[in-house]
Amino acid sequence: MSSTNPPKVDVPVLKDLNIDNITDNVKLINGQCPDPRLKYVLERLTQHLHDFARETRLSHEEWMTGLQFLTKVGQTCTDVRQEFILLSDIFGLSLLVDSIDHPKPPPSTEGTVLGPFHSHEAEPQTNGSTISHDPDGEPCLVLCTLKNTAGEPVEGVKIDIWETDSHGFYDVQYPGREGPDQRAVMTSDAQGVFWFKAIVPVPYPIPHDGPVGQLLKKLKRHWYRPAHVHFMFEKEGYDHLITALYLRGDPYETSDAVFGVKDSLLIDLGTVTPEQAKQYGMKEGSRLISYDFVLVSKEESDRLREKNATEAMQKLGRNMKMYNGLPVPDVD
Amino acid sequence: MSSTNPPKVDVPVLKDLNIDNITDNVKLINGQCPDPRLKYVLERLTQHLHDFARETRLSHEEWMTGLQFLTKVGQTCTDVRQEFILLSDIFGLSLLVDSIDHPKPPPSTEGTVLGPFHSHEAEPQTNGSTISHDPDGEPCLVLCTLKNTAGEPVEGVKIDIWETDSHGFYDVQYPGREGPDQRAVMTSDAQGVFWFKAIVPVPYPIPHDGPVGQLLKKLKRHWYRPAHVHFMFEKEGYDHLITALYLRGDPYETSDAVFGVKDSLLIDLGTVTPEQAKQYGMKEGSRLISYDFVLVSKEESDRLREKNATEAMQKLGRNMKMYNGLPVPDVD
Repeated sequence: MSSTNPPKVDVPVLKDLNIDNITDNVKLINGQCPDPRLKYVLERLTQHLHDFARETRLSHEEWMTGLQFLTKVGQTCTDVRQEFILLSDIFGLSLLVDSIDHPKPPPSTEGTVLGPFHSHEAEPQTNGSTISHDPDGEPCLVLCTLKNTAGEPVEGVKIDIWETDSHGFYDVQYPGREGPDQRAVMTSDAQGVFWFKAIVPVPYPIPHDGPVGQLLKKLKRHWYRPAHVHFMFEKEGYDHLITALYLRGDPYETSDAVFGVKDSLLIDLGTVTPEQAKQYGMKEGSRLISYDFVLVSKEESDRLREKNATEAMQKLGRNMKMYNGLPVPDVD
Repeated sequence: MSSTNPPKVDVPVLKDLNIDNITDNVKLINGQCPDPRLKYVLERLTQHLHDFARETRLSHEEWMTGLQFLTKVGQTCTDVRQEFILLSDIFGLSLLVDSIDHPKPPPSTEGTVLGPFHSHEAEPQTNGSTISHDPDGEPCLVLCTLKNTAGEPVEGVKIDIWETDSHGFYDVQYPGREGPDQRAVMTSDAQGVFWFKAIVPVPYPIPHDGPVGQLLKKLKRHWYRPAHVHFMFEKEGYDHLITALYLRGDPYETSDAVFGVKDSLLIDLGTVTPEQAKQYGMKEGSRLISYDFVLVSKEESDRLREKNATEAMQKLGRNMKMYNGLPVPDVD
């Protein structure tokens, strides 16, 4: 683009911007955005970003430190590491967004943080498969059912499962790994059942050799997550469910570095009975996780999300309407 | 760090976090931070980040889009390109932070955005040097004085100067460049004078081949800056001044993509008189920029910054005290 042939300028007039008028001016010029939702999101982002700077009297040095920090966060990301998700996690933003976007009315299973270690490499497995091949892990039978809110089994749900090995690391954290492990994609059967052989989950540190770890250190926060297994459920007509089961009594049960623990997702480790040992091909006395998941329909979740959004907007005193299920200013 | 030997947990108890209580819980756990300033900055950041998500009802998809955008911004940064500064610039944050941190009481010269193209490569030059070697540029004599607010000349100020070539590009934007050009570091003489030979600045597009450019396109914003020359002034005892001179009448004078233009920084291009031509070794009738900069003392600027901060905190109804010149909660 040549600087000698500049395009026509037909935008709001800006000039002489200062602490008090810069925010309105930025909103004004961003107000040209044709997408009403993006326009609203950026309008609120600008307001909060500027209010943050004004309320803290942010210094040039702090601003530069912040930008350099964010640069490092971006540059720490790779195909198998997402440091920005981790940053969002440790600020509670991930948990908040999941709570807003996927409200789970009782009796449906609550959601929790996705975390930075979901991958798309997991291989399809059938009921009864062994998904962890770590010889140091404590074998654990996992028996689950999947129902809708009316108590009926849900067949054909795609279930993504992932956990760490016994050392607290996901497969993708090993540079020399041969392929996926401690991961599977399964499908619920006609009875809504899925089951597999895994290992007892262990508490583990989130990656702390990058900028997020340095920040946690500065804040005197530990970087541990309590032991858990991740689950993600997907089926047309049902609200997407990202959740996890946590072991009750874990030393980090009440101080999860990423704020993921919920009471309803805490489980007690059981023991495989003689009958189960025979039926599922496990040693008697082995560890057992069993859980009955309940999926809410997309329709019911959408309705609740929009109801929550409408109430929140009323509380804020804003005149809004829904646009693709999300609020935008009602300017008509 | 072995997961079998977890450190002692001695932190506030968190559990069952939801839309309404997550913010307080994140603040609680970050409240362990021993640095009162970092603690306050992150407390406000958490509040605004969460309020932003609640007020927009941010969806999981939008959250992911945002994090992927920030990741790209970080990964676009190199030794000679700072895409996060550019992002801050187009959101008016850079201008806001400069206004907060470097208040310039009259008659001192106002500051403006640093921009992403300052480099530390510029070579020291003496008065009269030619700082641009672009044969296509229109030669321009630049005559400046530097005074304090009492009207006295200020000697020995380090002055960093940078502008684009006639095509609107900074030296660092050319991958095959041989060394710095259109840049200099000069020093004011005993009369507070500094002068050099440059080229008439031209309007130019900010880098728009990265994520920031893509965002501007989505917002239907242009990416041009009006013609300007950057100046940075540094001397012990004076407030750091980052500023620029803009050509009045530029097509982008009232729509600068990074909100930098201020009335007091607009100049009219003059013409080199016969006397000046002789004195400064320029062709008669050449273009001329002349400006008298006024530096405020660090003491006066610090005092004004603290006064502004104190007033802003009072307006917010917060009980604060100053800590290294910046506000923190007064909890004693």
